[in-house]
Amino acid sequence: MRYEELTIEGRNSVLEAYRAGKTIDRLFVQEGSQDGPIKAILKEAKKGDTVVNFVKKERLDQMSGTGSHQGVIAYAAVYEYAQVEDIFNAAKQKGEAPFILLLDGIEDPHNLGAIIRTANQAGAHGIIIPKRRAVGLTAVVAKTSAGAINYTPVAKVTNLVQTMEQLKKQGMWFVCADMDGEVMYKQNLTGPIGLVIGNEGEGVSRLVKETCDFITKIPMYGNIDSLNASVAAGILAYEIVRQRNWK
Amino acid sequence: MRYEELTIEGRNSVLEAYRAGKTIDRLFVQEGSQDGPIKAILKEAKKGDTVVNFVKKERLDQMSGTGSHQGVIAYAAVYEYAQVEDIFNAAKQKGEAPFILLLDGIEDPHNLGAIIRTANQAGAHGIIIPKRRAVGLTAVVAKTSAGAINYTPVAKVTNLVQTMEQLKKQGMWFVCADMDGEVMYKQNLTGPIGLVIGNEGEGVSRLVKETCDFITKIPMYGNIDSLNASVAAGILAYEIVRQRNWK
Repeated sequence: MRYEELTIEGRNSVLEAYRAGKTIDRLFVQEGSQDGPIKAILKEAKKGDTVVNFVKKERLDQMSGTGSHQGVIAYAAVYEYAQVEDIFNAAKQKGEAPFILLLDGIEDPHNLGAIIRTANQAGAHGIIIPKRRAVGLTAVVAKTSAGAINYTPVAKVTNLVQTMEQLKKQGMWFVCADMDGEVMYKQNLTGPIGLVIGNEGEGVSRLVKETCDFITKIPMYGNIDSLNASVAAGILAYEIVRQRNWK
Repeated sequence: MRYEELTIEGRNSVLEAYRAGKTIDRLFVQEGSQDGPIKAILKEAKKGDTVVNFVKKERLDQMSGTGSHQGVIAYAAVYEYAQVEDIFNAAKQKGEAPFILLLDGIEDPHNLGAIIRTANQAGAHGIIIPKRRAVGLTAVVAKTSAGAINYTPVAKVTNLVQTMEQLKKQGMWFVCADMDGEVMYKQNLTGPIGLVIGNEGEGVSRLVKETCDFITKIPMYGNIDSLNASVAAGILAYEIVRQRNWK
């Protein structure tokens, strides 16, 4: 199993982490903070027996990686990456066909955070990211995910293509978005599906694209090349939601 | 008419600005840059008779507002805000029912940039933003829009509710997203439509919500409160695209 250190910043993110049952090793709270959200965090800290350090704002500013700690920073012992099998089993337990997002090299932490948030809301069972050429679960990602990182499992794999091949044997099929695909509204996107989102600049890599069963397209009527990666992921994920649940 | 100064940073953004016919007053290029995109920019600069300044990287770093100038910064004379009437007429000229995005207090420049990009690709005729409590067309917005800011008109109005009332008289109707709405897939979102996107934290303000004809809802299956504002705008805009063009 794979672990990574995580700093959690901001009131909502820290509170969500507690409520999701994460172990917080140390908590740093700005001296004199007395408002509702801070009180709620301190209550959770007491429940969880967390070591609380009251510090000056300057100290928090110095510790902060995001620049917006809102008076509270927590050190979670670890953020646990899930296994691909965990994601697959989560779907089985819910009695749902698997719905997984695969990110082929997302580099911007704001995009990764927003995609985790979208995956959570779209009812996806998890996210698979590659170990190389991709951002991991950093503090910015956790904050941008607005707490979703506590609920939606993220697995990290060595080779995306190999993982796709294995999941195909378990009955999954894969779709990626590219301009030479068929318009998504005309395709059948139901069943056990893996949605592949490409890198911000370069899109989906050649081998991953070749491993996909279908290529889909978001229709575009504009003057520029593409959509923001996390917006495209949202549009595609919700077309899957529509076809699964609202057709 | 309203003008605002604009600094354009990054190769694609500067090149797009030239190709969209913007007047560039001054161009700053990093000394020794010789690659393709820079050459293309210098060619455009010659055509447009732009004053070119070759400067050291440190100078560009100092001038940069985004931190990623990629060796080129341009000062456009002005960025011209459109009039609401221009947006309405653009739809008429295309023989299309108006499709406008109204942003009720988007504060994050990355969100505004991504929404302009989405509006352009979704074939929306323009964007209306309020003068107060909202980010304007800054350098970060221009860069995040990936060039779309050159094509999709943005109008700035004093009072969003008054503008909506006026547009209603011209036959438009308005929809905003909120959790107490009906699921968007079940609603008729065709015709001359204004899609209202709320503020990142507080959503749509009360008066604007009351002025909307319909409230719609993105179905959410997750454990958290909401989606990122630009992702939500993308999902909603593309449900309108689907109903207009692909039903």
